[in-house]
Amino acid sequence: MTYAVGVDVGGTKIAAGLVDEQGRILERRRLESPKYDADELRDAIVEVVEELRQGHDVAAVGVGAAGSVAADRRSVYFAPHLEWGSEPVADRLMAKLDLPVVLENDANAAAWAEFRFGAGQGVDDQMMVTLGTGVGGGLVLDSELYRGGHGVAAEVGHINLVPDGRPCPCGRRGCLEQYASGTALTRDARAKAAEGGAPRLLHAAGGDLEDITGTMVTELAKHGEPEAVELYTNLAGLLAKGIASLVAVLDPTLVVLGGGVSEAGAVLLQPTREALATEITGHGKRPGPDLALAELGNDAGLIGAADLARNAKVQVGFRSDT
Amino acid sequence: MTYAVGVDVGGTKIAAGLVDEQGRILERRRLESPKYDADELRDAIVEVVEELRQGHDVAAVGVGAAGSVAADRRSVYFAPHLEWGSEPVADRLMAKLDLPVVLENDANAAAWAEFRFGAGQGVDDQMMVTLGTGVGGGLVLDSELYRGGHGVAAEVGHINLVPDGRPCPCGRRGCLEQYASGTALTRDARAKAAEGGAPRLLHAAGGDLEDITGTMVTELAKHGEPEAVELYTNLAGLLAKGIASLVAVLDPTLVVLGGGVSEAGAVLLQPTREALATEITGHGKRPGPDLALAELGNDAGLIGAADLARNAKVQVGFRSDT
Repeated sequence: MTYAVGVDVGGTKIAAGLVDEQGRILERRRLESPKYDADELRDAIVEVVEELRQGHDVAAVGVGAAGSVAADRRSVYFAPHLEWGSEPVADRLMAKLDLPVVLENDANAAAWAEFRFGAGQGVDDQMMVTLGTGVGGGLVLDSELYRGGHGVAAEVGHINLVPDGRPCPCGRRGCLEQYASGTALTRDARAKAAEGGAPRLLHAAGGDLEDITGTMVTELAKHGEPEAVELYTNLAGLLAKGIASLVAVLDPTLVVLGGGVSEAGAVLLQPTREALATEITGHGKRPGPDLALAELGNDAGLIGAADLARNAKVQVGFRSDT
Repeated sequence: MTYAVGVDVGGTKIAAGLVDEQGRILERRRLESPKYDADELRDAIVEVVEELRQGHDVAAVGVGAAGSVAADRRSVYFAPHLEWGSEPVADRLMAKLDLPVVLENDANAAAWAEFRFGAGQGVDDQMMVTLGTGVGGGLVLDSELYRGGHGVAAEVGHINLVPDGRPCPCGRRGCLEQYASGTALTRDARAKAAEGGAPRLLHAAGGDLEDITGTMVTELAKHGEPEAVELYTNLAGLLAKGIASLVAVLDPTLVVLGGGVSEAGAVLLQPTREALATEITGHGKRPGPDLALAELGNDAGLIGAADLARNAKVQVGFRSDT
């Protein structure tokens, strides 16, 4: 059995694991992300990989990065929360580790993991929508991860939902992300509580509006608390409008919903499915996609990165010397 | 040299041609579409193919259809303007012609033609947006025509642009098609003329508002007539908003604009390009697509259908016996 190491580098945490050919994690590590120094970030990745490879036949390393990864998957050209430097970080890591290293956008890696080992197994054409701090996504088209012409496809959170709507850090206004992310859920929950419509949430937050979080809404929604369920139903209606536009373009057979917001389960899935049934272009005259909840949770990114690296056929001999 | 016959079956006209391996049309036919009877429609296609194949080594027949083509490309499962019948029309045509026959959505076929022989040659990842009576599209991803999980991808005219906006025949409201098609251009021109803002257009229409057409706007815009240019600038701004959402999802290297509205040329291309530069998610931090005008005009559908059929490896021996 050969293994691959997957490293999911987020804005605050690095999660890494030793992953087998069936996508199972045999060992894992978790540490703070060095945020401001590209050398420290690279050293932290090297260290965690060296720990995990001890005593195992590791074939490759996949690094999932929250940011825009260049089309050749050697460098990160834009990341909002981390300093990666301008050098081809994959080549630098390869030189230090003497192992093939592949970079991948973290949402792409998660989508790939769900396709290979999670909710999307056996489905050739699928889209993952990750509802977290922002809204990300990944496309598996004809059983291949689709990265686009410049490597930055699948930014499904940035289709426009409301013209001149809420401002978005991407520089536009009204992006889907501003209405269906955990951040949006938090904002909507605080607004509802401010109007007196969410006493249980306010109580859960110790009476302070600003301490209400999306996670609290998710927890209360799971337990069927009406004020939280209502927040989810509203979010689902907006999410379905966005998914309907994506379905017009991509016609996936399956849409996988992941990220923290999706942890509410049926409270998200059911109203999204219902709204989508009538939101789809030509509904009734064409087949629509199935909708499913992601199965791999926060592990999807590292599992997918490991699997992509294992299959990437990168040769250590081709690294640039550094 | 072997040839293929391409047949573009629209709601009112059938255009057919004998096409060589370089996408050149050697001979062509044009006839009315039999609209209401699937047998008559099939017979008309057979007749035009028989005429065009006389004296030539024809390898295959491609039929482009304005409608939803099933994923296996044997039947049309929904067409708004034509009666195709529920049988696998490709198999019926194959049995009559004793030639391999492939069906394709007409906008997909046009996108393929532009990729192979037109504005998109050599570009692996591209999207065509066809601005005609409606707004259609086609996706070439990784140098392959992408059809989606059910065969109905690339309905780029049906992403939502304006929530609760203008009603669309697709059953939703506010689709891009309602703001960037020739139909939309006609409607906007009449509204402008009704307010006294388009005297030249009104004059061109003989003084009758209802006789103003999108084609008239296109002609006047080509000649730099300010009232027509203004209508185009408005349309381009809305089109750019739609394209920006599509770019977030697909990240194409090139967007090809086709259809009758695009015949205005630079009057469409320039303002669309300018608006798109600031509409793209993360603009300035990521590469955007080039924008180009289609080069094959109304011939794109039949050229693309012929080329797809030539490369489809459909075997006559596999036809169902009918």
